[in-house]
Amino acid sequence: MVPAFAQCARALWPPGESHLGVVASLPHSKSNPVAEVVPSAPGGDGEAVLDALIDLLRDDLVACNRTIVEHMDSPVVLIPQLAAHIVAAGGKRLRPLLTLAAARMCGYQGGLRHVRLAACIEFIHTATLLHDDVVDESTLRRGLASANAVFGNKASVLVGDFLLARAFQLMVADGSLKVLEILSQAAATIAEGEVLQLATQNDLDTTEARYLDVIRGKTAALFAAACQVGAVVTARPPAQEAALAEYGMNIGIGFQLVDDALDYAADQAKLGKTVGDDFREGKVTLPVLVAYAAGDDHERRFWQRTIGDSEQTADDLAHAMDLMARHHAIAATLDRAARSAAEAKASLSIFPDSPLKTSLLGVADYTVSRAR
Amino acid sequence: MVPAFAQCARALWPPGESHLGVVASLPHSKSNPVAEVVPSAPGGDGEAVLDALIDLLRDDLVACNRTIVEHMDSPVVLIPQLAAHIVAAGGKRLRPLLTLAAARMCGYQGGLRHVRLAACIEFIHTATLLHDDVVDESTLRRGLASANAVFGNKASVLVGDFLLARAFQLMVADGSLKVLEILSQAAATIAEGEVLQLATQNDLDTTEARYLDVIRGKTAALFAAACQVGAVVTARPPAQEAALAEYGMNIGIGFQLVDDALDYAADQAKLGKTVGDDFREGKVTLPVLVAYAAGDDHERRFWQRTIGDSEQTADDLAHAMDLMARHHAIAATLDRAARSAAEAKASLSIFPDSPLKTSLLGVADYTVSRAR
Repeated sequence: MVPAFAQCARALWPPGESHLGVVASLPHSKSNPVAEVVPSAPGGDGEAVLDALIDLLRDDLVACNRTIVEHMDSPVVLIPQLAAHIVAAGGKRLRPLLTLAAARMCGYQGGLRHVRLAACIEFIHTATLLHDDVVDESTLRRGLASANAVFGNKASVLVGDFLLARAFQLMVADGSLKVLEILSQAAATIAEGEVLQLATQNDLDTTEARYLDVIRGKTAALFAAACQVGAVVTARPPAQEAALAEYGMNIGIGFQLVDDALDYAADQAKLGKTVGDDFREGKVTLPVLVAYAAGDDHERRFWQRTIGDSEQTADDLAHAMDLMARHHAIAATLDRAARSAAEAKASLSIFPDSPLKTSLLGVADYTVSRAR
Repeated sequence: MVPAFAQCARALWPPGESHLGVVASLPHSKSNPVAEVVPSAPGGDGEAVLDALIDLLRDDLVACNRTIVEHMDSPVVLIPQLAAHIVAAGGKRLRPLLTLAAARMCGYQGGLRHVRLAACIEFIHTATLLHDDVVDESTLRRGLASANAVFGNKASVLVGDFLLARAFQLMVADGSLKVLEILSQAAATIAEGEVLQLATQNDLDTTEARYLDVIRGKTAALFAAACQVGAVVTARPPAQEAALAEYGMNIGIGFQLVDDALDYAADQAKLGKTVGDDFREGKVTLPVLVAYAAGDDHERRFWQRTIGDSEQTADDLAHAMDLMARHHAIAATLDRAARSAAEAKASLSIFPDSPLKTSLLGVADYTVSRAR
């Protein structure tokens, strides 16, 4: 049986037999009917949560995807080609879903501001993905060849720049200086987080606090902004705005912690990226910090050689995973993620019960469940 | 004698013995006194024009440079370190000068909006330079090692992203949606121009019109926006705003045409970058298009091999320059630049005479004179 999520997703994208097939027809056909292409669905129990959320937001999501396709257009055809490779490739569209859900939970009624801002969020996210893949020299993204692998690093850098600029054009069209303030701050914070990650690479003296600064910046800041914007378009009082920002920040932290655990623990086909990427790049993530802190001198020399000095042999990843199992490093990371999810849920306590609130509570659990 | 431009420039930057020396003292010392570091001065007759303009705008420029230094700060120290490497390395600061000059010519009096927006313009420019150098794999910028050569491609991409986000934060603080619209549009257009340049690389069928689209996008759009913004902060009527945008667009086109000529004609030490970079990268610029169009079959095969197929030997650059001389390709390019400069000057005819107008007319000539 085709999962409901995938069925819904089919309804959200323009027709085409492949991602590039879709793309080829995009540049000058803004009126393309919306249908058919299947984004990658998440596996596991969390899927039902997203299915439920999509059911509640179906019309908004269709409008959001249409806005994304329209606004990634450009007379320079390589731009929609490359953008569609990554945007149309699917993904969970979790961030724009959060904007739409937050706005609707807050009672948003008029117009399409929430849709336009959800598209902005996805553009900012997509721009960072394009630049991340260049920076990380990744060849896989969501189980497909990454944009830089297909179109080259140069095009990925420049199209990322275009999408970021386009996101700001969309915000300007929306006309709210407050939204612009939140999202320009988020864009700066994301870059700061990414640079901090670069600075902590190969550095086993990185503290857990610093690691959390990295993931707050590179991942959670955009989740926070995505949710906060939902309160802004509905002119909610500051406490509700802050609660939604807090919720987003915590599910972002949980999300990235799980990502960092999966990099050492996942089924590669399910993950849609190469297992062990973080290890090979010498990224200092929580699983590494936990195993390193708990390790004896011999183990610490192993981490120093492989992560600190980037001297790795073919068997090292397997040994790293053994050491993590010995010290329950993955479990500790997932526990920390579960704590973030619980904090996220607690932030929503000030909102009255509603189907959307229930879905958002479920999304917090989903950030953890996708690793189990 | 130290040129006046260099003397002025000394007064505009924080103290330090080297660019990195400056940087090291920046991150947590926003109150740094402003003095000492010498940006690279332009050579030739044009220098007097810039000197005169700087004389008229000295206080504004000092304030602008202080704003730049303050706003490239971040607790992530690699960001101000890398940013200062490129920002403090000098350059002509032509774009922010244009914003300041346009605003003052239009009678701007109150506050520091023009200063803040001039800093935005420089941040956008710097972000594109950082990404350009990654995309072009350049190792020299303004006669110094490029940021990517010193700090790596990854840091250059990410700090570029940070500076672009920071530029938008500054615009949001300014609070004008009109300015945000102009500059977000410019940022998107720059990226489009860069991607189009990538698409025309190695393509000798590129038309002159398409080449002009490239340079309008990658270079002239920001010059146009820099000037237009000066009219916006003074609430000038649409005709004056359009005239300043037109002036900026045309000096931007002239500026890039001269740059493209210099890549085949300049004294390397004076140019501050490697002569022949465009040739080696297979960029299809006007000097190439002119020589290719005028060449016989034998010559066209040479261009096809070296630019079209990127198969180059050590002697090819010298031969390319010979062919350009034979067909007056550099002269034709500079003539086209002179035409743009003349058009730029004509656009200013609707403004009453003033010392600043005289300077801006001189800047148009400077875009051409720096190649003679």
